[in-house]
Amino acid sequence: MRRRSFVGGMVASTVALRVAPPAWAQGDPLPSWNDGPAKQSIVDFVARATTAGGRDWVPVPERIATFDNDGTLWTEQPMYVQIVFAMDRVKAGAARHPEWRTTEPFRSVLADDRAQLALMGEKGMLEVITATHSGLTTEEFRQTVIDWLATARHPRFKRPYTDLVYQPMLELLAYLRANQFKTFIVSGGGVEFMRPWTERTYGIPPEQVVGSSGVTRYAMPQPDKPVLMKEAKVEFIDDGPGKAVGINHFIGRRPYFAFGNSDGDQQMLEWTAAGAGARFMGLVHHTDAVREYAYDRNSPIGRLDKAWDEAIRRKWLVVDMKNDWKVIYPFELK
Amino acid sequence: MRRRSFVGGMVASTVALRVAPPAWAQGDPLPSWNDGPAKQSIVDFVARATTAGGRDWVPVPERIATFDNDGTLWTEQPMYVQIVFAMDRVKAGAARHPEWRTTEPFRSVLADDRAQLALMGEKGMLEVITATHSGLTTEEFRQTVIDWLATARHPRFKRPYTDLVYQPMLELLAYLRANQFKTFIVSGGGVEFMRPWTERTYGIPPEQVVGSSGVTRYAMPQPDKPVLMKEAKVEFIDDGPGKAVGINHFIGRRPYFAFGNSDGDQQMLEWTAAGAGARFMGLVHHTDAVREYAYDRNSPIGRLDKAWDEAIRRKWLVVDMKNDWKVIYPFELK
Repeated sequence: MRRRSFVGGMVASTVALRVAPPAWAQGDPLPSWNDGPAKQSIVDFVARATTAGGRDWVPVPERIATFDNDGTLWTEQPMYVQIVFAMDRVKAGAARHPEWRTTEPFRSVLADDRAQLALMGEKGMLEVITATHSGLTTEEFRQTVIDWLATARHPRFKRPYTDLVYQPMLELLAYLRANQFKTFIVSGGGVEFMRPWTERTYGIPPEQVVGSSGVTRYAMPQPDKPVLMKEAKVEFIDDGPGKAVGINHFIGRRPYFAFGNSDGDQQMLEWTAAGAGARFMGLVHHTDAVREYAYDRNSPIGRLDKAWDEAIRRKWLVVDMKNDWKVIYPFELK
Repeated sequence: MRRRSFVGGMVASTVALRVAPPAWAQGDPLPSWNDGPAKQSIVDFVARATTAGGRDWVPVPERIATFDNDGTLWTEQPMYVQIVFAMDRVKAGAARHPEWRTTEPFRSVLADDRAQLALMGEKGMLEVITATHSGLTTEEFRQTVIDWLATARHPRFKRPYTDLVYQPMLELLAYLRANQFKTFIVSGGGVEFMRPWTERTYGIPPEQVVGSSGVTRYAMPQPDKPVLMKEAKVEFIDDGPGKAVGINHFIGRRPYFAFGNSDGDQQMLEWTAAGAGARFMGLVHHTDAVREYAYDRNSPIGRLDKAWDEAIRRKWLVVDMKNDWKVIYPFELK
């Protein structure tokens, strides 16, 4: 893990960051990207957006870049990280919830019955998330996330999940920020699941994380000691059309640069593309079964089908992970 | 109107700002505040928060400051500005809505029957807002706000509403930003009503404006030309306990500095105060009927009653507008 201080007040010099690419000193802002059309299209866009007096110049306050998280900034296979977290919370809470042993989807989670779980699909997953993400304060939930990430390991790579972020995308985030873009996450994942670690991992502060959320309720269990209780009720799903809604609601400006990897990002890219002037739309295509995973049209997780067709039709960048990325993870550099 | 360039990329040098206080060169960051305990308490807090190695030092990324808008940053009497806007929208749309001539609360708006309107209270107001803030795209709404502000005039001061911002608070915002605080608005007002003008008026960009909102729906009326339609349905009310909820939802960090003026700000201040370490909580008390307005416990607009009692009990700053502020509005300086 490298330490690096950032200009602009967004990230304190005391925050440990892994976003500093090794070859910046040599002048290549994207050293983990192979030379080719993908890398070139990014560099070209940023050059145009930052050339004062140019036709595609973007005023600094309007330089908004939005990134999906799962499958765009970190690995989402074989299962969304937040779902793994929620399943571990079911196991941790089973003693206090004897009814879970006989109630679906909790029974399947406790029995590690993945086939049955898969059958229950998104509805089952949402139920597991709702049950495990409620009945505690926002502060307690935050600590739970931090504690879990400290010990949980990815089943294939045997590493903390926050190690499984994409080095080329870390370089892209840093490159955009060096060019005065404000980088945001716009994810279907829970905003309170992401905020505890995005600043350290991506250099993206909590106030620049947009995500799904549950309802919270202000309560005062002790005098002058208010808390926000997380309730078992969905407030907002930041996915698909919800990403355009979320960008408008949380950010209030249209991005000039947006990156996703699945059909859930299609409307974010459409919304970005519909702005005046030059805009950049990109998708990560997972093509590398050896170094990461290979999946697209038929994957239940991170399905890339309609958004892929639209990207081809409208000439948006589709990154071929296997051929465009020199390395996948930061630990490969060591 | 002065022009001034800002460091930090938050505001482009091309944006016209009225936030530059005249006496900065002489070293006083708050020249429109009279010397006294109010000004001193602000300067003392900022000094402590920014003294590296001190007990109350706040890391730069955590320097979050939140401000209510109506009655804290600009004048909210004799009626919330957004309500005046909504009433004008009813008048502008009356030809297309013949049914409004016989349906309350629209009939009273069209007849300028303020007594009847007052009787309908917040429910009537919300109905007028919902009806006039829906059925158009977010882009169309934005333009409507800009056009209205360009011509609407305050009934007493005969000036654009954005002239009626408080010079001492503009100085406070600039002072906090100069000390690397990130300044946010957290208002009961509509987020889409505020965002078109907050950057120019306060130096606060859209992505740092938290407010109430209606539901928006993603639609594609023409191929590849998506819009967000504003629907006649409330999504979130950022007032009272909702301000603590909104701060957590939009910002994801607890403020170190918060300023309001009414009971609607009480929970924002409580939430701020409940954080570890030194925090600053302030209220503007409207005591100046000559230069602005005088109102508190019995005012239907901007009522200051319970929050005032709590501020006294907990020794939060209560600004006495008449005695603590040398000038109220920027135009007084000219």
